[in-house]
Amino acid sequence: MSLECICLQSRSSRCVFEPVRVARHQPGEHDVTIDVKFCGVCHSDVHVAKNDFLETKFPVVPGHEIAGVVAAVGARVTKFRVGDHVGVGFFVDSCLECAPCKRGDEHFCSATFTPTFNGKPAHGRAGAGVTKGGYSTAMVVDERFAIALPKALPLERAGPLLCAGVTMYAPLVKWRVGPGSRVGINGLGGLGTIGVKLAKALGAHVTVITRSARKERQARAAGADAIVLSSDAASIKAAARSLDLVVDTVSVRHDLKVSALAPGGLIDLLAVDGVWCYCGLILDMLDVQPVRLLQHQLSLTATQIGGIALTQRCVDFCAKHAILPEVEVVEATPAQLSAVYEKLDGGNDAGVRYVLDIGNTLNASVFEQPRARAPKLVSGWRVGAQIALILNRAALARIEEFVLEHTAAIAGGVGAALFAAVAAFVIPPLASRIRG
Amino acid sequence: MSLECICLQSRSSRCVFEPVRVARHQPGEHDVTIDVKFCGVCHSDVHVAKNDFLETKFPVVPGHEIAGVVAAVGARVTKFRVGDHVGVGFFVDSCLECAPCKRGDEHFCSATFTPTFNGKPAHGRAGAGVTKGGYSTAMVVDERFAIALPKALPLERAGPLLCAGVTMYAPLVKWRVGPGSRVGINGLGGLGTIGVKLAKALGAHVTVITRSARKERQARAAGADAIVLSSDAASIKAAARSLDLVVDTVSVRHDLKVSALAPGGLIDLLAVDGVWCYCGLILDMLDVQPVRLLQHQLSLTATQIGGIALTQRCVDFCAKHAILPEVEVVEATPAQLSAVYEKLDGGNDAGVRYVLDIGNTLNASVFEQPRARAPKLVSGWRVGAQIALILNRAALARIEEFVLEHTAAIAGGVGAALFAAVAAFVIPPLASRIRG
Repeated sequence: MSLECICLQSRSSRCVFEPVRVARHQPGEHDVTIDVKFCGVCHSDVHVAKNDFLETKFPVVPGHEIAGVVAAVGARVTKFRVGDHVGVGFFVDSCLECAPCKRGDEHFCSATFTPTFNGKPAHGRAGAGVTKGGYSTAMVVDERFAIALPKALPLERAGPLLCAGVTMYAPLVKWRVGPGSRVGINGLGGLGTIGVKLAKALGAHVTVITRSARKERQARAAGADAIVLSSDAASIKAAARSLDLVVDTVSVRHDLKVSALAPGGLIDLLAVDGVWCYCGLILDMLDVQPVRLLQHQLSLTATQIGGIALTQRCVDFCAKHAILPEVEVVEATPAQLSAVYEKLDGGNDAGVRYVLDIGNTLNASVFEQPRARAPKLVSGWRVGAQIALILNRAALARIEEFVLEHTAAIAGGVGAALFAAVAAFVIPPLASRIRG
Repeated sequence: MSLECICLQSRSSRCVFEPVRVARHQPGEHDVTIDVKFCGVCHSDVHVAKNDFLETKFPVVPGHEIAGVVAAVGARVTKFRVGDHVGVGFFVDSCLECAPCKRGDEHFCSATFTPTFNGKPAHGRAGAGVTKGGYSTAMVVDERFAIALPKALPLERAGPLLCAGVTMYAPLVKWRVGPGSRVGINGLGGLGTIGVKLAKALGAHVTVITRSARKERQARAAGADAIVLSSDAASIKAAARSLDLVVDTVSVRHDLKVSALAPGGLIDLLAVDGVWCYCGLILDMLDVQPVRLLQHQLSLTATQIGGIALTQRCVDFCAKHAILPEVEVVEATPAQLSAVYEKLDGGNDAGVRYVLDIGNTLNASVFEQPRARAPKLVSGWRVGAQIALILNRAALARIEEFVLEHTAAIAGGVGAALFAAVAAFVIPPLASRIRG
């Protein structure tokens, strides 16, 4: 007997959501059936719904910051009981047998992992057909891919910890942040704000790097010890070489100036052995002069989300230290989703995570509502333009290499051409004038 | 009573060496006086002697891979006794009080460290005037900047461990290489060969990455378990995602293709969480697409030499595991130096370190020899050309940014121009034709 639920789906990249009744797959003996209460709306939901990566399978039901209550458990489930609070994050299956899976990096499964939505099941634990995410009243998930949510965490604020939370927690753990660490957080949106709280709870001295001075109060409220204005060279200079790790949440082009020849960039904030860790999805090219890394033994790196064990550790850490994302709970209706998608697509500057109130608002009454207007979204031209620029970069590099390798020949060729020009256009008139 | 010694010095960037008698500074109570026996010739000697960094103070006496015997010790010296084998590496003084000095990173001294040659003394332990290096029969060095050389190490092969050795040892230690680690060494010159031996002794599986198949025998002799041909896409593909750390010794431009849009580059060799560590001095710019780092959580980094404690640890490790650089001992004469400089400047492909036999050949007889011919050196145009290209890169980035930010305005401008052109050149003739 399969479980029917109500989902909000979009049929095209215009992101017009509509309610639909969907049958979830038959729960197996390792599965938990989840009564979804809340689902956060992540910027990557918008990317996929807009088909920015050209791999969205429509209709799509996004959502991977899911918090709910266990409604039923399979015969062999040991982690959960009915009534427990439970979360589902970015993925719902992986092979569980390869080296990455065994060490807890299911999101780097050597076979393939199955994203919570828009994913293709491959290992038998995620039903059949394209996966449908958390904009939905119910989920069926193998307990090995579900996160136990301590009851100390308010359910409406727990979902974002499964994505934004672990995205910030992973680099702090990987680079061993603790008392005495000097951590910078670049950007103070949803990711950055929770990053500040996590780094503070780990005992670090935290510096917020932001473009705008008006963010100072918000940064201090989150717990920041210091502020650097990235738009102000003097502010960067004053904090030069003062940070051991910068977690960079800015997901649009920003040049760190990793160049020994052009000092004064954000990279100068790093101390000897400092690490700059990207967490935003940046398609742009960055110019990196390896000798600048050598100068102070710097590292450029990046991390993405985290495995199940780390996500559980992050959630437990947040419960213990009362770390909660700033959220704005909105109705799970097509009209509200349009409004939220417009805000996120325009670059959410509010530092809050929008969370859909599935439990109280996604029900039969949604079918009675008028069709939602389409959100106003920035078109995909930017990605296209960037790809074109990147390809030009590669062409430029080849030209450079050619010039460097053939300087003598090119100089010779130019010389010969000049000589020919002189021979053809200067000598005859001169000669005739002399003769004349 | 100061100590007189014979040095080989060059008066200009033409690198014509000549013998000269020099007075070393008065040994203090913490100083050891060293009877220099051998000195390796490092590529960076050539860079400084050629004034490639535009900061050479002539006349210059290079040399920082020094191995000798303790001839005298100051009253408070505890680490050395007369007759001990002793080495001097890249630097001979630092403040010893700042945080980097205290944790053993004297080469990142917050004040300034004093290089063994062409350095400016700043903390009172390196005499007065510009420091003169190891192409010299004697040195006076504070014991805290001298390395104890175990007698198991043949003196003529110990010097390169103080520079090339620790340069390779530092990244292997920093990135915790041990049994089970999968290490790549890019380039099989002097650095690469000792890198292979060190990584093997630490228990790693070692892959040599090289442009030329004819290096295979040399790689296997050094202990390599596998070979990747960097000139062969199939060879890279077969080893994709198989390495945890690559130590990159190649010091000329080579593009790793750190781009998600252009797969097939050397960066693809790194496994999830893999680290690419530059040890060569590369001035060129590299294109880095942060999303490619994110894809497999890769790091780009670099290390340079090592502090005194790490250098001592490296030397002791090499003595224990009988790790010795391949060297070719040459006479410490102006003529031999010219020959060696020519070879290094042309890109030493032999995988050996040239070592001057100071003890047996640098003596009064050198003054009787005819003046050496000038070595044939590649001129500095390459560096100049690269700087120009880098500056162009910065200009290009600004143009890109402008275009991305002003696409609508540019499109509007082009549209308006086209409209004006149509209005001016197409409509009047058409109109007159219609009228006519």
